[in-house]
Amino acid sequence: MNVENTKAQMRKGVLEYCILSLLAGEEMYPPDVIGKLKDAKLIVVEGTLYPLLTRLKDAGYLTYRWEESRSGPPRKYYKLTTVGQKFLKELDETWDELAQAVKKTTRNNPAR
Amino acid sequence: MNVENTKAQMRKGVLEYCILSLLAGEEMYPPDVIGKLKDAKLIVVEGTLYPLLTRLKDAGYLTYRWEESRSGPPRKYYKLTTVGQKFLKELDETWDELAQAVKKTTRNNPAR
Repeated sequence: MNVENTKAQMRKGVLEYCILSLLAGEEMYPPDVIGKLKDAKLIVVEGTLYPLLTRLKDAGYLTYRWEESRSGPPRKYYKLTTVGQKFLKELDETWDELAQAVKKTTRNNPAR
Repeated sequence: MNVENTKAQMRKGVLEYCILSLLAGEEMYPPDVIGKLKDAKLIVVEGTLYPLLTRLKDAGYLTYRWEESRSGPPRKYYKLTTVGQKFLKELDETWDELAQAVKKTTRNNPAR
């Protein structure tokens, strides 16, 4: 276990949560998702996002449709399924609990 | 991948962060740490905490000293090392980044 390891753990769960949150608001194709994640300072490359989207789709949380594009190949537009909406609600609750826990436990931390 | 899986991922990283935060504020023995985590609604059993403390100690982030107890066997009191303090500061930054990212990405989520 090292610094990067714990950080990576924190990031990985939150990244999935953020992707689902983004796709709950609107249908998007992967470059849109990457753009939004970059806006949120979550740096993600295509090579990270694509397998994640596939896993979330295989788990039943996401679905997609193809859309023709004038400027290139057809695009996959992703959105949340009903199961995904329910899952996201649970993650919202988990996040709120964790954020509360961090707030409570870091009160004792003199560095903050 | 299922619901519990993503939640567990989010929890695991945050749990380590919270433990280090608690031990940055004061020296504690494991039942104190469990009590504080319970106060913060992070339910952790001894079987989860002990291996985590050992891992954090082996990674150089924690150290401990033995203290005699009138009411039972000697107790291990844990505290952060200098390396642990530095690590915690990085986790503080990671947490702040992630919290900002969640705030930004969940704006689009109609369920919130």
